[in-house]
Amino acid sequence: MNAQRGKRGGRLERLAQRAAKPAVDPCPPGQVGGAYKPLTEAEIQRIYNTALDLLENLGMGEVPPRLQADLLAAGARDNGAGRLLFPPSLVAAAVDQAAKTFTLHGRDPARSIEVGGNRVYFGTGGAAVQTLDMESRAYRSSTLQDLHDFTRLQDVLANVSWFTRCCVATDVPDNFDLDVNTVYALLKNTSKPTATSFTLAEHVAPIVEMLDIAAGGPGEFARRPFLKAHISPVISPLRYGEDAVDVVYECIRHNIPISCITAAQAGATAPATLAGFLAQSLAETLASLVMVHAISPGFPMIFSNWPLVIDLRTGAFSGGSGETAVLNAASAQLSNWLGLPSGVACSMTDAKAIDAQYGMEKGLTSLTAALAGGNLIYESSGMTASLLGASFEAFVLDDEMHSHSYRALRGIEVSEENLGYAAICEAVLGDGHFLGGQHTYAAMERDYFYPSLADRDQPRTWAEKGAQDAWGVANIRARQILKDHHPEYLTPEQDREIRARFRIL
Amino acid sequence: MNAQRGKRGGRLERLAQRAAKPAVDPCPPGQVGGAYKPLTEAEIQRIYNTALDLLENLGMGEVPPRLQADLLAAGARDNGAGRLLFPPSLVAAAVDQAAKTFTLHGRDPARSIEVGGNRVYFGTGGAAVQTLDMESRAYRSSTLQDLHDFTRLQDVLANVSWFTRCCVATDVPDNFDLDVNTVYALLKNTSKPTATSFTLAEHVAPIVEMLDIAAGGPGEFARRPFLKAHISPVISPLRYGEDAVDVVYECIRHNIPISCITAAQAGATAPATLAGFLAQSLAETLASLVMVHAISPGFPMIFSNWPLVIDLRTGAFSGGSGETAVLNAASAQLSNWLGLPSGVACSMTDAKAIDAQYGMEKGLTSLTAALAGGNLIYESSGMTASLLGASFEAFVLDDEMHSHSYRALRGIEVSEENLGYAAICEAVLGDGHFLGGQHTYAAMERDYFYPSLADRDQPRTWAEKGAQDAWGVANIRARQILKDHHPEYLTPEQDREIRARFRIL
Repeated sequence: MNAQRGKRGGRLERLAQRAAKPAVDPCPPGQVGGAYKPLTEAEIQRIYNTALDLLENLGMGEVPPRLQADLLAAGARDNGAGRLLFPPSLVAAAVDQAAKTFTLHGRDPARSIEVGGNRVYFGTGGAAVQTLDMESRAYRSSTLQDLHDFTRLQDVLANVSWFTRCCVATDVPDNFDLDVNTVYALLKNTSKPTATSFTLAEHVAPIVEMLDIAAGGPGEFARRPFLKAHISPVISPLRYGEDAVDVVYECIRHNIPISCITAAQAGATAPATLAGFLAQSLAETLASLVMVHAISPGFPMIFSNWPLVIDLRTGAFSGGSGETAVLNAASAQLSNWLGLPSGVACSMTDAKAIDAQYGMEKGLTSLTAALAGGNLIYESSGMTASLLGASFEAFVLDDEMHSHSYRALRGIEVSEENLGYAAICEAVLGDGHFLGGQHTYAAMERDYFYPSLADRDQPRTWAEKGAQDAWGVANIRARQILKDHHPEYLTPEQDREIRARFRIL
Repeated sequence: MNAQRGKRGGRLERLAQRAAKPAVDPCPPGQVGGAYKPLTEAEIQRIYNTALDLLENLGMGEVPPRLQADLLAAGARDNGAGRLLFPPSLVAAAVDQAAKTFTLHGRDPARSIEVGGNRVYFGTGGAAVQTLDMESRAYRSSTLQDLHDFTRLQDVLANVSWFTRCCVATDVPDNFDLDVNTVYALLKNTSKPTATSFTLAEHVAPIVEMLDIAAGGPGEFARRPFLKAHISPVISPLRYGEDAVDVVYECIRHNIPISCITAAQAGATAPATLAGFLAQSLAETLASLVMVHAISPGFPMIFSNWPLVIDLRTGAFSGGSGETAVLNAASAQLSNWLGLPSGVACSMTDAKAIDAQYGMEKGLTSLTAALAGGNLIYESSGMTASLLGASFEAFVLDDEMHSHSYRALRGIEVSEENLGYAAICEAVLGDGHFLGGQHTYAAMERDYFYPSLADRDQPRTWAEKGAQDAWGVANIRARQILKDHHPEYLTPEQDREIRARFRIL
């Protein structure tokens, strides 16, 4: 789109070239959040105390026997009526001893990220079952081919800091084949930190064999795990899910970092009142943490408290709203207040089209989560249709949106040099403007993000170029990437070895 | 869009009906912002001190003689080289004695709003010269008819809290006719608080005659002014503009509240470094305040510091970016820190189409300005194309977006009742969910905003209904409003009197 700009003349052309390839990304992932605090200190304390009360008095139901033994050993109490109660001291110990920061490894070490503090990273988390087709602009069932394509597409997008399979390969009917081929798609197409789900605990060990092949030999994956597991061991309200708990045990045994995701839904599986929702879902995510603590104190766990909203008119999950924005921001604030690595969901939308609703809902929900300091912001790229859909165009558009969010997070560096007293005096007493000055040039390259998809032309120029909308622009970009980028992160030997051992579809 | 939902059955139908017409808007205008603080206290202090240094040592140039006399009388110093210097004590006095809160009156008193504190109101401020045509989806020159249509369209939109003429009637060549017919369009089509610009000071008095006719007689407008003036008396960097200063004097004489807007552009008329930009534009907006203080201490002025960004590759103004988001949020924070009624710009976009870029850029910039507590958020509705364009579809979409922002601002009420300990115990020990409970019903009506334009259907339903995008949905809504809503806020007598006195086109 910018190719024509060079025609306008020498100085602008040079400026355009300098901006097109900045020496340093002005707003890379990992910017610091936390400037937005939806809750006061007193409100945080009340919500936390309510969560502690719930865990102490109501506790958790349906505790699987093995976990029950471990929890009792760690200090939980059996209430004699089918529920385990967690005294505040147990919860405090779990928080105290939890991993506060840790590395999510990429197979390429340059792509590893450090989780914790107030650093913010956007990544994916979805499990869409439908793909927004690039040709027909209609939704169809997601396939294994889609998963390969999404994985290699995002491999070039700087603002997807880790990649979880964004869609489910619905054309793979067998659960084991599905889990295997999902991880294979990740191994083949990206060297970033990755994540997946395990349908059953017994899938973990064989898949670790595959991960070991990619890592260079038996036991190598566990030394530097480059895949984490997304697990929802708590079923709202306040009970454990046995299959997911089994997966937790297996992941811990194989040193797979885990995101324990609480995904309660307001008005269905949690209170519709926002404060009550946060109290319950905080209690539930703490119950996951206590579980991990009872199994292996300090094992790396992303404290993933995702408050989800349903439209109470229909009962359908809804991802794009002011309620979602403030709830996920508050969740990040609560987790960060506890000092735990926070995971929240954002950049969600109910839109099906790549349209104004899409952009607006994503903009609102993603920036709030980031400003509140969510460490890992899931669902942030490529998702549409209330998380039911995934879209190639969405991936490239969201990547650019995240740069704006990171730029906002980077904030305003107030230094002597940046305050620019001398530069202002010079301009005011000189030729009355700042164009072309050294102070301006330096800032231009260092402080401004220049989008490549967004249209900043005048209306007339836009019309002359075909009056394209963002969906169309993104379609071209996504096709170009998919045409050009065919990564092969497995050596032929690794690929052969995996194919000999597993059914790769 | 939701008409078919009732078919799904009795309970959902009742729920839908209850939600469609909530007894009380869950998130009306005037929500409290300030939870997002892009600057620390120390950073604010440094920026403020730099602004004071600029005013004390560099001061303001091109001071018109009448204003020079008033400023010198108020305590400014002449540096003998064509600039007036403001000692910190003068600035402090201007801030101290400034109007901290005041009413923007609607002709309908129920539509008046109270400006100040951390209350947030979205409204308009644009001066688009092109209209995005509803038929052709192309831009064309804005007309007086457009202005009438935009004014009556927004009259039904609850989240436009005041209406400034959003477009310029480019088919009215004479400046006086333009100013007169602009105000006439406001008087005829809305009873909200309004705002306009005066091209020249001598237009003010005759237009006040027209305002008096609408208000009920000579002198009546000044008793309860329902129109404010947008003026940019400072030309960046750091000099006054004589014509605009003359308009200020006239507005003060006629008791027309003023928005003194500083609209510096980063890298052109202000430093490209964000901190330096804020220091200079704060100094400039303080120079407007000192001016008002010297003329009439405490006269109502919106402290409108709008930091604007240009794309330094092309020199074109750019409204939709992370830099714009954080700069306007910081501006709101600075103004609120000074205790002054803050005006910032947001909900800007560079998109021409009503597309994903449009939604994303608006979402990012408007929510940050609101979370930071901007009192009056200008440009927030209907604007496109880097403020060059106005769009009917944009107006209705933005109105819905603002409800989401207000909902996020409303935050999370942490009360005993909302924490819902009893409701959680009941659900956990009872039937395991919260659907249909009284706690849920009450929250549904009180705490959730249900959009009417946004599509929340499943992909299949969306496709069956025609796979419409937000632009299409908004087009239908805007046409319907324009078909149905023909307000007539002037009586036949008032209209006759105005037409007898003025050339109404």
